[in-house]
Amino acid sequence: MSIENCIFCQIVKKKIPAKIVFEDDYNVAFLDIFPVSSGHTIVIPKKHFMHLEDIPIKDLANIIQTVKKVATLIHNKLDIDGYNILQNNFKAAGQVIDHFHFHIIPRRMDDNKFKLYIPREQANDQSLEDMIEILRK
Amino acid sequence: MSIENCIFCQIVKKKIPAKIVFEDDYNVAFLDIFPVSSGHTIVIPKKHFMHLEDIPIKDLANIIQTVKKVATLIHNKLDIDGYNILQNNFKAAGQVIDHFHFHIIPRRMDDNKFKLYIPREQANDQSLEDMIEILRK
Repeated sequence: MSIENCIFCQIVKKKIPAKIVFEDDYNVAFLDIFPVSSGHTIVIPKKHFMHLEDIPIKDLANIIQTVKKVATLIHNKLDIDGYNILQNNFKAAGQVIDHFHFHIIPRRMDDNKFKLYIPREQANDQSLEDMIEILRK
Repeated sequence: MSIENCIFCQIVKKKIPAKIVFEDDYNVAFLDIFPVSSGHTIVIPKKHFMHLEDIPIKDLANIIQTVKKVATLIHNKLDIDGYNILQNNFKAAGQVIDHFHFHIIPRRMDDNKFKLYIPREQANDQSLEDMIEILRK
């Protein structure tokens, strides 16, 4: 399954060049050409899925092993202090290419790359209780 | 396997209360009490692992299915436009609790929560080639 105008499908088919870090029958890992940090790598399944909720469990279990393998490689080979795994779903979450993918983002201490802790305040108990009600009903 | 002073292990053992979204024999999903956005959920394995590189492939394949299941639930039940899956490894990457976990972060269009696109410039070909050399040698 591939989509003609999908840039990641074209990378899979080698119609667009990419710097391949790792490849097997199911997944490809390649360097992001707009890296957040040096070594920033994208991991994609060769089949075209759009979002986390679309990818079958077998393919998902498969790609997360590749993410682990490539992240471990990156951690071992580069002089880094940590790494983020990020997977964005839908435009509101920053997904730019509509082909399911994971980012592996190498981090150095105090590199001031993105972090989560924006205006993050402790939630009051009632708001959490209300949320649980919605999610569990 | 659990660690006595690990807050997430204590949530697993019900020694610390949490708003549980989902639980099975292997994993627990609960609301983050410092939510980046409403519905922000943490998914953890019941066993204590620190980082992506430590969690065995079987446990990893298992928890990513739970992440998919809970993210799909959140997307279906809440009025949101997308969601991020984020998994931080080591302090430099923003990992605060040393118990492997995924964040599921609900997103609304233009909510101005975190995004990746800081000073992100296209990398020149030579720098990518040098990186591939390091990673593949």
